[in-house]
Amino acid sequence: MFETAEVGHSIDKETFGQLEPALRKALLDAQFELMQGKKCQVVVIIGGVDGAGKGETVNALTSWMDPRHIEVRGFGEPTDEERAHPPMWRFWRALPPRGKIGIFFGSWYTQPIVDRVTGQCGEAEFVGDLVAINHFERMLADEGALVLKFWLHLSHKAQRKRLHKLEDDPSTRWRVTKRDWKNFKHYNEFKEISARALRETDRAYAPWVIVEGQDARYRNLTVGQTLLNALNARMALDTVPSSVHAALPLPSLDHKHLLGQVDLQQKLAKADYERELEHWQGRLALLTRRAEFKKRCLVAVFEGWDAAGKGGAIRRLTPGLDARHYDISPIAAPTEEERLQPYLWRFWRRLPALGRVGIFDRSWYGRVLVERVEGFCSEADWLRAYSEINDFEEQMVSFGTVVCKFWLHLSPEEQLRRFEERKSLDFKQFKITEEDWRNRDRWPAYEQAVCDMVDRTSTEIAPWTLVAAQDKYFARIKILQTLCEQLERSLG
Amino acid sequence: MFETAEVGHSIDKETFGQLEPALRKALLDAQFELMQGKKCQVVVIIGGVDGAGKGETVNALTSWMDPRHIEVRGFGEPTDEERAHPPMWRFWRALPPRGKIGIFFGSWYTQPIVDRVTGQCGEAEFVGDLVAINHFERMLADEGALVLKFWLHLSHKAQRKRLHKLEDDPSTRWRVTKRDWKNFKHYNEFKEISARALRETDRAYAPWVIVEGQDARYRNLTVGQTLLNALNARMALDTVPSSVHAALPLPSLDHKHLLGQVDLQQKLAKADYERELEHWQGRLALLTRRAEFKKRCLVAVFEGWDAAGKGGAIRRLTPGLDARHYDISPIAAPTEEERLQPYLWRFWRRLPALGRVGIFDRSWYGRVLVERVEGFCSEADWLRAYSEINDFEEQMVSFGTVVCKFWLHLSPEEQLRRFEERKSLDFKQFKITEEDWRNRDRWPAYEQAVCDMVDRTSTEIAPWTLVAAQDKYFARIKILQTLCEQLERSLG
Repeated sequence: MFETAEVGHSIDKETFGQLEPALRKALLDAQFELMQGKKCQVVVIIGGVDGAGKGETVNALTSWMDPRHIEVRGFGEPTDEERAHPPMWRFWRALPPRGKIGIFFGSWYTQPIVDRVTGQCGEAEFVGDLVAINHFERMLADEGALVLKFWLHLSHKAQRKRLHKLEDDPSTRWRVTKRDWKNFKHYNEFKEISARALRETDRAYAPWVIVEGQDARYRNLTVGQTLLNALNARMALDTVPSSVHAALPLPSLDHKHLLGQVDLQQKLAKADYERELEHWQGRLALLTRRAEFKKRCLVAVFEGWDAAGKGGAIRRLTPGLDARHYDISPIAAPTEEERLQPYLWRFWRRLPALGRVGIFDRSWYGRVLVERVEGFCSEADWLRAYSEINDFEEQMVSFGTVVCKFWLHLSPEEQLRRFEERKSLDFKQFKITEEDWRNRDRWPAYEQAVCDMVDRTSTEIAPWTLVAAQDKYFARIKILQTLCEQLERSLG
Repeated sequence: MFETAEVGHSIDKETFGQLEPALRKALLDAQFELMQGKKCQVVVIIGGVDGAGKGETVNALTSWMDPRHIEVRGFGEPTDEERAHPPMWRFWRALPPRGKIGIFFGSWYTQPIVDRVTGQCGEAEFVGDLVAINHFERMLADEGALVLKFWLHLSHKAQRKRLHKLEDDPSTRWRVTKRDWKNFKHYNEFKEISARALRETDRAYAPWVIVEGQDARYRNLTVGQTLLNALNARMALDTVPSSVHAALPLPSLDHKHLLGQVDLQQKLAKADYERELEHWQGRLALLTRRAEFKKRCLVAVFEGWDAAGKGGAIRRLTPGLDARHYDISPIAAPTEEERLQPYLWRFWRRLPALGRVGIFDRSWYGRVLVERVEGFCSEADWLRAYSEINDFEEQMVSFGTVVCKFWLHLSPEEQLRRFEERKSLDFKQFKITEEDWRNRDRWPAYEQAVCDMVDRTSTEIAPWTLVAAQDKYFARIKILQTLCEQLERSLG
């Protein structure tokens, strides 16, 4: 794997002088085309051994291209804020938008490799990390991102020489730290673990390019030329081919479905409701204030028919919570900024930190509901979304997040009654729009989408709860109770 | 995940009578089109809980379609022969060729799930199994196969009822075994582990379809209709979209490459050669007869320039081996049968069993060498082959196979000398063809392909050895020595 990067590659000054201007011009042109077309984002990872010239390579790239459209992200020790979110959160928030190039100086590979070398992470966890990375990069590629990963390599001998040389020069001495020498002692372990990580994540849609780091001219030209070729090849594609899918979900042959199973007769009298409300709100208050909750967080997802009472249910939730410790994210159409990112980006940025509660009024399930039914995304897009969402929720859950998902169900007749009521009540008129009426006409299509969603994403780690919302009192209590019970089970 | 499969689906006799004939006819038509076009193979997995009607579903499918073009494969306990190969071997040899439908009654999911439930397999191993399954199914889909996975489900209550019912009827009593009741006791563990396996492997290119098993009419129709829709959708595609790739390998900018690093001056005098030959052949004989080798096997891959001496090297190897314990596979163009299968199929069938040696005179690397250079496969195909090959070799190595890969290198001048010599020697004339001369003209293209191959597939688990083959004596000893040393390290 690293053989070619130990042959002693080098480019002499004269040859470099001949090649560089053309490369520079071509890179600028390609970058301009990327910027204009906004067809994809470019994710460039610069990884490799200490002293192999990662920083210099990044500097070369930014000096060759227009640095205003390159986002360079360095990743050192995670900040407090980053540690309070699932590990991939810091990388999601650093993703470049379409039209830009993001250079990741250090990446999602660093921590798993270091932790495995130092023994802080076991075998099962390491395998799991590599799986998550493969899913993540596959998702980026499916979303149209161009993913390029460079590994700058030095042989054992070359690394020693390089570290000494940097140390001997007063102007570069600061660059060699104690940790560099400590890592150097573990050169072979690092090499072995890295080789394995590279092997398991070297896929055609996100390949590793291993570059010898010793000679700066060779290294920078190789990285630059590879980037240029990949940019040009991608610009030449009209569309990124979407993954093949094997089957569309089949509508239930006997017209029986999950939603039909929900007993809409369930009711709660007002007096019972008020008593229960107080009880469960109190319980939620205690649960979210327990010491254990500081190391966990709660995500509550609310989906449901228009006028099913999502807002009302959420308002009954919050009195049990400390106002400083929760966020409500009402999800509408994506903003311009969000449309330039992979689909899940806008949800990653809203994930609650440890000790917090994130309430989503509509959510990432929009892709397999409204976007599917209204044709806002392609068939291939919503079909692969089921597994992407499951991967996403797995990352939350394995970080310690409790994920509760509610579908608020009612009958079309009850919905109509509520629509009419809203129309007639002045202070509720704003709640009913043309779109609501249109969605209502597509009830059967939405019904199918909801059933498929539950089938594919109600998992053992993050199950759906179908809530009978014909009676608002009943629905609100059911939700509070489910939340409390799931939390209790998780906090132990 | 299993919610929809517990709602009590059923289809009455009359409705079934109306739907079945049309489905049957349409399935036959689709099967005929599949057979004629030979555009893809269909891999259908029927999994699920005991008593959910797996066998009956398979019977329904074979009775609806032409059973001569359906291959039904049941998988019970692995045979001795199967246990002597990596776990996936038994499934590779059961794959249907293009144009046919293979129904897997039991599959690559069974063993991992059962072993995890019974605790025979740990967490890391289970995660690794699921990774391998994902890679395998992705490869099948990329090779154009249609992969459909059905999970027949019964609720806890329904399963108990079903087992009792089968037992009470004298004609079906034999179908309920002690193991079925034993498994039933672990219903919840099975459900939990299965749910996780299904979640992590439910991908758009190979989706899980969960079907309630209780009512035979509903179950069979649902499976049949899903299969029909998927077949028709696939037949309607002109080509399966190939995965996107991010970058082509870049030729070395300073024209320095790995092959150039091989010191072709290395020689061995005849007397030294004969002494060394005896020494290493003896050592190989002892190593492959050690008791530990019974639980391992050896795969030796020979690639190299035409006339570099692969055949001669292989002949120097075999005197050290027991003739009953090795196979030599000379790899030429695939046969018609092999062309109807995924690329790696013909190599899987030739893998040595435990205690045996498999020698490959050319190998699966053809895809990234001759097929790449001569354009026998698409760019997307050879680009994804690197990771597919790495996955393939990982399965061998984790099973205990020692994988040694040799590239025999010589200079173009020495090759020419050998070509001329062959032409002039009567008994060697058959060894030189027009094709050899043509390949020679494409030396630089092959050189690039070899370097890329080594870069991408010389891994920590299965490294390449570049052999200086300018001098045949030197090459043969180098190969024998490398084999012995790698074996020694592995046997401990």
